[in-house]
Amino acid sequence: MSKYQLYCFAESGNSYKAALMLELCKLDWQPVWVDYFNGQTRAPEYRTEVNEMGEVPVLVHGSKKISQSGVILEYLAGEAGKFGPNNEDERREILRWMFFDNHKFTSYIATLRFMVSLAKTGETPVTEFLRQRFGNALTIVDGHLAKQPFLVGNRATIADLSLCGYMFYGAEIPLPLESYAHVLKWMERIKSLPGWKHPYDLMPRSKVDV
Amino acid sequence: MSKYQLYCFAESGNSYKAALMLELCKLDWQPVWVDYFNGQTRAPEYRTEVNEMGEVPVLVHGSKKISQSGVILEYLAGEAGKFGPNNEDERREILRWMFFDNHKFTSYIATLRFMVSLAKTGETPVTEFLRQRFGNALTIVDGHLAKQPFLVGNRATIADLSLCGYMFYGAEIPLPLESYAHVLKWMERIKSLPGWKHPYDLMPRSKVDV
Repeated sequence: MSKYQLYCFAESGNSYKAALMLELCKLDWQPVWVDYFNGQTRAPEYRTEVNEMGEVPVLVHGSKKISQSGVILEYLAGEAGKFGPNNEDERREILRWMFFDNHKFTSYIATLRFMVSLAKTGETPVTEFLRQRFGNALTIVDGHLAKQPFLVGNRATIADLSLCGYMFYGAEIPLPLESYAHVLKWMERIKSLPGWKHPYDLMPRSKVDV
Repeated sequence: MSKYQLYCFAESGNSYKAALMLELCKLDWQPVWVDYFNGQTRAPEYRTEVNEMGEVPVLVHGSKKISQSGVILEYLAGEAGKFGPNNEDERREILRWMFFDNHKFTSYIATLRFMVSLAKTGETPVTEFLRQRFGNALTIVDGHLAKQPFLVGNRATIADLSLCGYMFYGAEIPLPLESYAHVLKWMERIKSLPGWKHPYDLMPRSKVDV
């Protein structure tokens, strides 16, 4: 058995954040596929035994079971000694972007992409709301990345791995990224990190048509 | 001048998280009122000089300017030696609930309350979406609080101060809380903390009809 197990599925960008971190750090890990689309995360057993919040990813390391991608990223940065902060100011700056990601970035794009590309709701007032909110967040991130190559300092950190969670799903992202030039360049920088993989090459896929 | 300044306005539950923490810790602080409803947080000067994310709260402490309520709460816990974690496991557990708050709890109730009670959009597909999502998050929190008095351990921590940010706005919360008995008892416990104040008694209000 690998040192780390990750409850995940490839369509989950939040899982991807953790999986990419494990891979980039060359840690000994294996995915534990979660059947999200058939309700596994909503089942009582999952909520009792794996995660009361009913979410992926969950990282298992020995007797530790850690949920919330932000906490997992921070934990793994400590374990691997990579992509973490160099000092307290950096630590807070990284945390700031990870909170922003959870509140205003991943939160909107994850739901927008789920509705349009997976649940196939079509365009609705809700998708329009999410698209506008995500656009606002993208503008803020693009402005920040106009000033520096990565979100914090001059190197990739877990803040970047958090915000990029849903950015590599290509055509599944129902919002054109062309006008966010600095975001696009930042994505290329992340793709250039040694060991980078696409989410669908890192984790088991679900049997759904996406 | 007080030791800490907090950019805030009373209608902002995210500001309330930080203001309540400052007050409960008896720290020397003063509010700096932000005219959110007339666009101050969207103005270029605010984005350049105060917070590029265009949000409140922002805490100023000497030369430090800290944004994102979660980061502020964590910083103040360190400053005051109160409401913070006692060990690494607790630290991660607190962080886990604060990420959950940003992603699934505050994110939905803040926007729902803004739309219904401040912007007065009336009921729309978007408010229905937000209400359902917030209901799901409330159910998870209620289940957790059925097992323990506060979110982490047996005492109030910054996790509680984060999740309670929008819970005390009374009739402005457009979702009945009666069926969440454990949440209601938890709110009473928070109200019983020495020094607790209502958001409208802690920060300057805006000149809007709420």
